[in-house]
Amino acid sequence: MLTASYVGDHTISVTELAETEPGPGEVQLAVAYTGLCGTDLHIVHGSMDARVTTPLIFGHEMSGTVAALGEGVEGWAVGDAVTVMPLDWDGTCPACLAGNQHICQNLNFIGIDSPGALQKLWNVSADVLVRLPLGLRLDHAALIEPVAVAVHDVRRAGLAPGDRAVVIGGGPIGVLIATVAREFGAEVVVVELDPTRRGQIAELGFATLDPREVDQVAWVTEWTGGAGADVVFEVSGAAAAVLGATDLARVRGTIVVVAIHPTPREINLQRVFWRELSILGARVYQRQDFETAADLLQRGTIPADVLITRIVPLSETQAAFADLEAGRAMKILVDVAGQK
Amino acid sequence: MLTASYVGDHTISVTELAETEPGPGEVQLAVAYTGLCGTDLHIVHGSMDARVTTPLIFGHEMSGTVAALGEGVEGWAVGDAVTVMPLDWDGTCPACLAGNQHICQNLNFIGIDSPGALQKLWNVSADVLVRLPLGLRLDHAALIEPVAVAVHDVRRAGLAPGDRAVVIGGGPIGVLIATVAREFGAEVVVVELDPTRRGQIAELGFATLDPREVDQVAWVTEWTGGAGADVVFEVSGAAAAVLGATDLARVRGTIVVVAIHPTPREINLQRVFWRELSILGARVYQRQDFETAADLLQRGTIPADVLITRIVPLSETQAAFADLEAGRAMKILVDVAGQK
Repeated sequence: MLTASYVGDHTISVTELAETEPGPGEVQLAVAYTGLCGTDLHIVHGSMDARVTTPLIFGHEMSGTVAALGEGVEGWAVGDAVTVMPLDWDGTCPACLAGNQHICQNLNFIGIDSPGALQKLWNVSADVLVRLPLGLRLDHAALIEPVAVAVHDVRRAGLAPGDRAVVIGGGPIGVLIATVAREFGAEVVVVELDPTRRGQIAELGFATLDPREVDQVAWVTEWTGGAGADVVFEVSGAAAAVLGATDLARVRGTIVVVAIHPTPREINLQRVFWRELSILGARVYQRQDFETAADLLQRGTIPADVLITRIVPLSETQAAFADLEAGRAMKILVDVAGQK
Repeated sequence: MLTASYVGDHTISVTELAETEPGPGEVQLAVAYTGLCGTDLHIVHGSMDARVTTPLIFGHEMSGTVAALGEGVEGWAVGDAVTVMPLDWDGTCPACLAGNQHICQNLNFIGIDSPGALQKLWNVSADVLVRLPLGLRLDHAALIEPVAVAVHDVRRAGLAPGDRAVVIGGGPIGVLIATVAREFGAEVVVVELDPTRRGQIAELGFATLDPREVDQVAWVTEWTGGAGADVVFEVSGAAAAVLGATDLARVRGTIVVVAIHPTPREINLQRVFWRELSILGARVYQRQDFETAADLLQRGTIPADVLITRIVPLSETQAAFADLEAGRAMKILVDVAGQK
């Protein structure tokens, strides 16, 4: 079967490997589509070389069907349409024992810390399967994982109907957060530097801001009747966005840290104190987020066709990353099943 | 009557002024004791010159008795023992309308933005009075305001019985937070650089740490069975403490920002994200915090006699600040009533 692996030195190798049988408790999946995301880009950049073991078959946003069942697997049948929630926790660390398995202190993130979905036949533990709703297209289903991230972020924010939310950063996760927040009843503005992205986001019906052209604090203050935003989602990863975010939030407002910030960032703690702000980290998702995400996609709430810029064969994975890096694509799916 | 005012240029002037009658809705208080705090020190330093109008009769931690009633005041009698919750909100801003009057967007903080308690006969709105519990000594009652800060911080943290809390900074507010957190059922360690303060804190029965001699992350990790602290209170105001605080907290743990940080601080947002931490600002107090604080002092829970380093006459107010600045005192009270 054909696979795509990160082999170090910014390089992806597309290689024919022998298929293996699913072990006890495992299911063999026929992978349909695998989405490429920002974390995968970090892997290919080499930024995660200290964490990953090469060659790594990566990929953690996927859809597919059950191809075979390992010994002792119950509740699943060949042909079932599924996705994978790629979290494998130990169940014994203090975080797990306190009910926060999704951010287990020794988490194995499948597709980063162990082999992922850029392989035609993928063996995974039956525990990580999530059943697809009837009628959900397999290409759209490959978006469940990033949509679940957005659902988790919005839930973590405690967003209530009628709230006003600012999303800083209009990449795929930012657009998904905006969409989920709107579905949860919020009014949303997206702050984004890139004019092409702003245009796409505006077409989805969101207000947008270019913070280099508009005084974003004045804009948000007027938009919220002098109060400030209920929630600010920091999805940009930019130092300037972090420093400015505290000025956008209302008294007792919430700032959710979604983006990766590899080095410490300056934060206006005087404002955090003065307005009794909350800054909350939000990472991955819980099973209910996955189920909500599948439901939102099935109902057509998520603009999947706008987000999926294109679908490429496995052999073009490396070229797809060049496009993602250059901002020439929102989301690229790899058609894993189309390969022999 | 004798008064103490900040007149600019690091200077306090002790001056005889004419008494005035209480206006409609006001009560005239015979001030007994006024405590000096870190904010007062900032005022005398000149750090708040842009905010205060000089000459300013400052002071906002006090105790006293009702001396006279203005027109229309009901529910109070001459001789009632009281303190003042020094917050005067507008009731109309978005924060007030959302129920957060204590951090009103246009808050008048009495003793900073308007005249305070370093005057023998002080006229205040009857709305800000808080009745003292029977039997509470007036010198101890002057601590209600800082104790209410600590109660608010602990409530804001969502501290639960059995939690393990780290207090960074063992000044008066740090010690009060440690004491209130212990009363709420937490185990507490106080991180403090000064050996004299560490000795005083240890005598109150708290574990203490010198972060220059002990690896605080290793210590807290072992203390919490590998989990990390449930709550970290940042009371030091130090940049290094902020940067280190995120390493002390457990998955989904809380860091409460109590101290003033006049410039932006670097925060390890990667850790905030990774562990889904919460960073919460906590400012002043609500009425229930004042009432809890009065109750804790009346029951002897607060080590008032340890905290009150000494009581000085109004004429020695300037010298008292020199001692506070040099760390030669925890809390100094001014005996306002003792003056003629």
